[in-house]
This record gives sequence, structure tokens and C-alpha cells, in this order.
Amino acid sequence: MSIHYQATPTQLAIAHQERLKIRHGANVPTMGLAPGMTQVNMICVPEDWAWDFLLYAQRNPQSCPVLDVIESGGFKTILGKDIDIRSDFPKYHIWENGQKINELTDITEIWEKHPKLVTFLIGCSFSFENDLLMAGIEVRHITDRTNVPMYLTNIPCRTAGKISGNLVVSMRPIPASHVSQAVQITSKVPLVHGAPVHIGFPEQLGINDIYRPDFGDMPRMSPHEIPVFWACGVTPQAAVIQSKIPFAISHAPGHMLITDIPDRRWSI
Amino acid sequence: MSIHYQATPTQLAIAHQERLKIRHGANVPTMGLAPGMTQVNMICVPEDWAWDFLLYAQRNPQSCPVLDVIESGGFKTILGKDIDIRSDFPKYHIWENGQKINELTDITEIWEKHPKLVTFLIGCSFSFENDLLMAGIEVRHITDRTNVPMYLTNIPCRTAGKISGNLVVSMRPIPASHVSQAVQITSKVPLVHGAPVHIGFPEQLGINDIYRPDFGDMPRMSPHEIPVFWACGVTPQAAVIQSKIPFAISHAPGHMLITDIPDRRWSI
Repeated sequence: MSIHYQATPTQLAIAHQERLKIRHGANVPTMGLAPGMTQVNMICVPEDWAWDFLLYAQRNPQSCPVLDVIESGGFKTILGKDIDIRSDFPKYHIWENGQKINELTDITEIWEKHPKLVTFLIGCSFSFENDLLMAGIEVRHITDRTNVPMYLTNIPCRTAGKISGNLVVSMRPIPASHVSQAVQITSKVPLVHGAPVHIGFPEQLGINDIYRPDFGDMPRMSPHEIPVFWACGVTPQAAVIQSKIPFAISHAPGHMLITDIPDRRWSI
Repeated sequence: MSIHYQATPTQLAIAHQERLKIRHGANVPTMGLAPGMTQVNMICVPEDWAWDFLLYAQRNPQSCPVLDVIESGGFKTILGKDIDIRSDFPKYHIWENGQKINELTDITEIWEKHPKLVTFLIGCSFSFENDLLMAGIEVRHITDRTNVPMYLTNIPCRTAGKISGNLVVSMRPIPASHVSQAVQITSKVPLVHGAPVHIGFPEQLGINDIYRPDFGDMPRMSPHEIPVFWACGVTPQAAVIQSKIPFAISHAPGHMLITDIPDRRWSI
């Protein structure tokens, strides 16, 4: 299905370097870091919620494309040799009964207290941004060095067991002349959210004010740009909230894990 | 990701008709039936093997692309309104401890004795055969009205929990001049096995005699044709055998369920 592209030594070195900075405390959104290398979302749930979550992902593959499942208690991933998922995201959110109770930059200690979490690493739309740039399509939040704006929509995902929630989307303003190309490019990478779910008219997604995203930073848009919406790997966090999962850990939106896998691995 | 193409009334009527024949006892391989409509593989396992199997599918997406998971005891699927998976496959295999103990054309009675099976419906390479035909590529086993030849390879799948097994492939002989086109066409449908896993040299897959498939019928090949191998939805049956799953039900290879979903739904 996917072609087993390998990263170049330079790409691997840069990914490693950025990851080390993050491991040692850099607490920043990761957009634009280690260009061409796959970044991923994370959601960890208790063992007895893992089946429901994997089923939720299977039923909502556009928002929850699972790139790796780390079994109970594990913290290593096939997506990179030296990765420790407990320290290598810049920021984590800790959830209890659907409420965010803490933000941390390292969860190694929490892991001791919750030794039986199952972790899902989920594709991220950052993976197609390099392709957009290479096609001459500006990615505004990279230009502006801000976090991508993300919105909780009014579109329910398919439920699975005890898990339900609405779709979360990321938005990029695209010049009307380039929207078609953006669809073409992103439709080729279904495992990192693929083609847009919606183009134009944010209110149809239940977004009342495009300048007030639910996650990430306020976008800058110009009059000749169309808001283009892609399914987002923050969708599991909406499910954590709505389903009141007793305990969960996620990354902070936009604060991703940089892996050793090149983005082009996900291209059809 | 996928476009929600709807079947035409005629397509639906034909699918329904073929399904009824099967429900009422037609016991035949389904290649070429209801052209353009999705056919699927099946594997049912006990509840306490379901997590391992879904993980196995996630780790081996090319051979086990899950199109629907039917939760414990269920027999209806989102892939078609009137479908009953207990009667709508032409033939079933019943497995105990990794051994095939029976072949049946209806499993409704068995279902009463094993009320807590979880069912996985898995994409089938028959879904891209119509596209091959439309591109002028002969599909030999449709021409010959035989079952597609399938082979157990020496390629291990990624294990998941208690489940392991080798990859099963289907084979179509393709004229050398059309192999590239066959790759192009099938790579666009990753959820029905996607691009070939191997082209030429069957012995590299551990296949000693291309004329003696492990499942399906003996192929007819001519000297200027290349054997082209695609991942096959019989792969879960190899896992049932190798993992000695205590109880399982599968379809008989090549004897698929005809759904109400058009094949083009799976196109990227």
C-alpha cells in the first residue's frame, strides 16, 4: 500500500536533534520542524477502553488514522528507534473523567502511576504541508510561525461502544486559485487525514467565528482566500471529553511527536 | 478520504438478486458476480480474541483492510441493509483450534451455539477487477470462470498479541505490456488490497509451483505473462491456523459476500 521510503541520514539527524530539544524541555508547537518528517498525534487510554478506541478509529479513519498502537504499558514505537513517547512530545494534556486536569511536558512519572495505558499514535496533517509548499501553496501558519487553528465541529463521528464525540478539523486559508491543487495533493495521503472534509462556509460545520479557533492560534486570512478544513487528530480529545473517559493522556494540540518516518511513506 | 459514491438502482437490484440466490443455496465462487459492487472477506472470532485480531489488521493493513467490524453477536453490517452475514456468503469454513472441522453454506445454527463472535469484514481484490477490465486488462480467472488462485507465502505478517501468520496472496497473470497499468490502477484502492505486493518470481514468495495454488483453482498462464501477486483477505485464515484460535468462522476462499457498496467507494 504505502511505499517504504526511508529517510535520508540528514533528515534523520534533524528529526533526532529536534526531538532531543523537545525531550530536554522545549515546549513549542512543532509546525514546520524537521520538514518532510512525519509528526503524530497521541491518545493513551486505560486497557479496558482500548478496544472501543481502536474500533472508534476504524469507524472514523479520516480523523483517526492509526499509524501505531503501543500495547499496554509500552512507550516505544515502530515510528522511530530512540523515541520515548513519555518525553518526546513538547506538551501533554492529562484528562480525568473528560476534564483536563493538568498540562505537563513529561509524563514519565504519571506513567508509573498508570502502568497499563494503551497508546495510539495518529497521523497528522502537518505531513502534507511540505507537499503543499513544494507545489507553491503557502501554508499560512508556517509563514506566521503560529500554531494551526483547529475547531470542534457539529459533525458527530460514528460511535464505538462507550466512545462518541464530534469531528475536530484543522483549517488552512488557501487562495481560490489553488484550492483544487490542495485537494489533489492531500487526497493522495489518506493516512495523514487525506482530502479536505469541507471547503468554505465555516458556519456549516458549526464554526461561528473563524477567528476564534477552539485549539491553536487565531488565523490570518485575506479576502481572496477560502477556508479549507481537514480532519484533525485532536478528534480523540473531543471523544475523551464527550465520553468522559475516566483517565487519558493526549498531546497538546499542535505539539506533536517528530518521528523517523518520512512523510512520503504515507503517499498512495 | 473515500468518496461516498452510491450504487445505481440497477446495481443494487443485481447485487440483491445475486445475494438472494446465494442465501437460498447457490454455492459458487463469486468472481465476476454483480460487477462494480464490493465483495468482502469474513473472519469471526470469539470476543476475547477480537482485540488481538483488530490489532493484527491494523498492523497488516494491506492484507487485512477492515471495512466493517460487527460487534459481539451481531450479524448485520453497514455494507448493505438486508444483509445477514450468517446466510449471505455462498460457503463458510468452521475452525477449531486452527483446524478446519466443517464446511457449511449457512451458519445460523452455529451462531446459536456461539453467540458472542465478533465479525470482521475485509476488503477483497475482486473490487479492482472491474477497473482492470475497463482498462483493457484481461482478468484470466473471470475469462475462465474459475476461482482466483491464492497462495500461502513465506512472508510473515506482523504479529499482534496471540495472533501470527503468513501473508496469503492472490495471483493474476498479466501481459508484460500491462503490468505497469495494473499497478497504477490498483494502487488507487488501498482498502481493497491496493498495489501488488510482488511481481514475477513466485519462488521468492515461497511458491514452488504456480500451477498448484493453496486455495482456488489452477491458473492458466501464457509465456508472455507475468504473475502479479496482491495481498489477499484469506490471510486471516492463515492466522487462524498458525495461531490455533480456539474457534473461528471464515468464508470459503473466493466465496465472498456481495454488498450494496460500489467498488469505486474505495478509490483514493
